[in-house]
Amino acid sequence: MNKCIDINCLFKVQYGLYIVSSTLDNKLNGQIATTVMQITNCPIKFSICLSKNTLTHEMISKSKVFAASVLSQNAPMAFIGKFGFKSGRELDKYKNTKFEQNITGCPLTLDYSLAVLEGKVSQTLDLNTHTIFVGDLLSAKRIATGTAMTYEYYYTVIKGKSPENAPTYVK
Amino acid sequence: MNKCIDINCLFKVQYGLYIVSSTLDNKLNGQIATTVMQITNCPIKFSICLSKNTLTHEMISKSKVFAASVLSQNAPMAFIGKFGFKSGRELDKYKNTKFEQNITGCPLTLDYSLAVLEGKVSQTLDLNTHTIFVGDLLSAKRIATGTAMTYEYYYTVIKGKSPENAPTYVK
Repeated sequence: MNKCIDINCLFKVQYGLYIVSSTLDNKLNGQIATTVMQITNCPIKFSICLSKNTLTHEMISKSKVFAASVLSQNAPMAFIGKFGFKSGRELDKYKNTKFEQNITGCPLTLDYSLAVLEGKVSQTLDLNTHTIFVGDLLSAKRIATGTAMTYEYYYTVIKGKSPENAPTYVK
Repeated sequence: MNKCIDINCLFKVQYGLYIVSSTLDNKLNGQIATTVMQITNCPIKFSICLSKNTLTHEMISKSKVFAASVLSQNAPMAFIGKFGFKSGRELDKYKNTKFEQNITGCPLTLDYSLAVLEGKVSQTLDLNTHTIFVGDLLSAKRIATGTAMTYEYYYTVIKGKSPENAPTYVK
């Protein structure tokens, strides 16, 4: 590691915690992500950054549609674990998860969700290990009131970790 | 506005508050931004999204170097206002601002800062009104302990607004 970089500083950068999802060939999948943000306002565009190793990345690459659910601070570790540390290649994550579908067909995750949004990919940026997907927002709906989960809260209060595929993973 | 989009949902997406800065031809400038995040971990890369209207955007486009300072929750509105609502084309924002320079020469803003980081642009993505700059992290240094300012805290507690150039601006 570069000695000019104090890794602890990286944890001062602020993120929410989201379930990013997609659909392909009538299959549904989703995963935890921190890297969701609005990047333009006219039109409203979002960017999402995912590891190329994940099934959700594969689905969004092919279907060009994505959804994101803003997680509430009261999302329990068991729920986060299902979406954050297991692959949709091994289990159907939406089998026991409440969701609805709207414009894109992506699962809009309702469990522990404050708001759901979905969009269509218009641009991508290849980062070698990860891809940034940029998409136009098609719908955004409020699900519940409450405080959003932040990565800092997840890391410092819940004592959660990052999986190896996460952009914020630290060895 | 698309009737499928509840604008209030956009405020549930979580961001920190940063001063993003650059240098060009011995001039220094910086601006408030929310759109700073780590996007890969090996190597560590960051992305920053800025409006094409801003002087900092112009400087980073040409110099290919950037810095970001993670603002503390106790940054006062007067300080945020100087960096968020005024243009470096009209005033020297670093005249009365404490900063240091390290590898890139960008001003690493120390006032109300928890940590400073800097990098070199390796890729860009043109979003028409804004640009995503992706860069390799070159240094990261802790400045102070404390709680980071979030956009939600700025918006709901300090009652701050977004300037028109912000990716999160809502008419």
